Amino acid sequence: MTDDKLRYIDRAIQAYYEQNLVSERLTEAILYSVNAGGKRIRPMLLLAVLEAFGHELTMSHYQVAAALEMIHTGSLIHDDLPAMDNDDYRRGRLTNHKQFDEATAILAGDSLFLDPFGLIAQSNLSADIKINLILELANASGSSGMVGGQMLDIEGESAQLSPTALNQIHANKTGQLLTFPFVAAGILAKQSQAVLASLRQAGQLVGMAFQVRDDILDLTASFEELGKTPQKDLAADKATYPSLLGLEQSKTMLDQLLNQAQAIFQTLEEAHSFDQTKVVAFIERLRLNG
Amino acid sequence: MTDDKLRYIDRAIQAYYEQNLVSERLTEAILYSVNAGGKRIRPMLLLAVLEAFGHELTMSHYQVAAALEMIHTGSLIHDDLPAMDNDDYRRGRLTNHKQFDEATAILAGDSLFLDPFGLIAQSNLSADIKINLILELANASGSSGMVGGQMLDIEGESAQLSPTALNQIHANKTGQLLTFPFVAAGILAKQSQAVLASLRQAGQLVGMAFQVRDDILDLTASFEELGKTPQKDLAADKATYPSLLGLEQSKTMLDQLLNQAQAIFQTLEEAHSFDQTKVVAFIERLRLNG
Repeated sequence: MTDDKLRYIDRAIQAYYEQNLVSERLTEAILYSVNAGGKRIRPMLLLAVLEAFGHELTMSHYQVAAALEMIHTGSLIHDDLPAMDNDDYRRGRLTNHKQFDEATAILAGDSLFLDPFGLIAQSNLSADIKINLILELANASGSSGMVGGQMLDIEGESAQLSPTALNQIHANKTGQLLTFPFVAAGILAKQSQAVLASLRQAGQLVGMAFQVRDDILDLTASFEELGKTPQKDLAADKATYPSLLGLEQSKTMLDQLLNQAQAIFQTLEEAHSFDQTKVVAFIERLRLNG
Repeated sequence: MTDDKLRYIDRAIQAYYEQNLVSERLTEAILYSVNAGGKRIRPMLLLAVLEAFGHELTMSHYQVAAALEMIHTGSLIHDDLPAMDNDDYRRGRLTNHKQFDEATAILAGDSLFLDPFGLIAQSNLSADIKINLILELANASGSSGMVGGQMLDIEGESAQLSPTALNQIHANKTGQLLTFPFVAAGILAKQSQAVLASLRQAGQLVGMAFQVRDDILDLTASFEELGKTPQKDLAADKATYPSLLGLEQSKTMLDQLLNQAQAIFQTLEEAHSFDQTKVVAFIERLRLNG
């Protein structure tokens, strides 16, 4: 089931690029990063929440999920650039600008920011739903979301950060694109404004939990567990939740965030036809025991 | 009148960034390039065609025009980057990455690719019209349009190009975003598919004329006339219309392209309530006499 979903997400991206070929090299560079072994956390969350509302998944749902993954992938390509994090490897493979070149990587990222809006626009959904999705996705990813947060993160590198400032960076840089799956699923399932507000809140909690977890793992996990060099944040003297709050309090914070998110799903299950099982299973896997 | 239009376009961009502030530095970098003295050719064309259909201009029209200018501006910021054209100056001012830094310029460009879709989505137009505009804009700007053409242009630098290959580069790199104003105005004016097809054809002709004109001016104009270093194409041994066809034949081509576009506007005026006056005046200014 999971494998089928992953395949349909990939298929939606692939199909978009098969119908729109201008430069083979550009398409190759785009698909190199799309197929770089990402776990598809954001699109899978979107599909899990949609199923929780009892919706049978359609091609259009996979296209929306694919659009989200495309923007996430574009941001990774640009984050790896020499002028940004200057990373040569991601998940054991050369980064896009190392495999191709810097100009190609910039253009591949640009494509992955522009194309998703075309993919959603051409999907077989009502125009109203598509506009709501596009508005949410643009706000979550552009200057008012992910890109704005990335800028704050760079600005914060040379500053002493408060926990509030750290929260603001992560709420934008990673939080908004992790909140989108919850809100988008609610829009696709035609939920009320009240339910959308609950979903947004749950998404923000989960997004924050992801970041706290990442920070803890960077400090405590081995290369094998992590799939990348651990203690990079420590080496870079980067402000993290453990560096600001300590390791134990960060672990407590992670548990509390996940508990709060689960309480929202519990309320949704009680008041609406929402089967929280799969969503909660997803959340549970974020806990770090011990 | 023209000044009012320019002010309303700028106001629409400014207003978007006032409501969506995450990073002041990012907004500053975005507006630095937005306000760098661009002539607003694309949005002004859109508004001229819309007025030709007898439409009174509204805030929503200015927002669509603004979205188009934002994507164009984002592409200029990324084109100037060291890994691309490596330009230090544009219109006599430092390029974005020279005024700020490379990371900021990458993020400013990224924002100007993502934000316009939010701006269109939040405008006060019917959802159907907004979806048509977004589909056209994404196709015109992403891997199937401007960004794809930019990649072809880079790939073509080291190759011997045929006139057909040169056409394909420009039809995508600059042509599609110059075609969008014509198609978008038709969509906003609720024109038939047949009229939209005529507008698209006229836009493609005008887009191609712009490029031929640019190539001729690069060869023949002075620094003062051009506002930038002339004969850059020649110095870079870049394939241009004059280098492939000769100067005289390029001038003939420019005239023919503009004549063909005007013939389409003439037909539109005869068959539909389309007042071609302002659009044709715009086109006439593209002619190079002598």
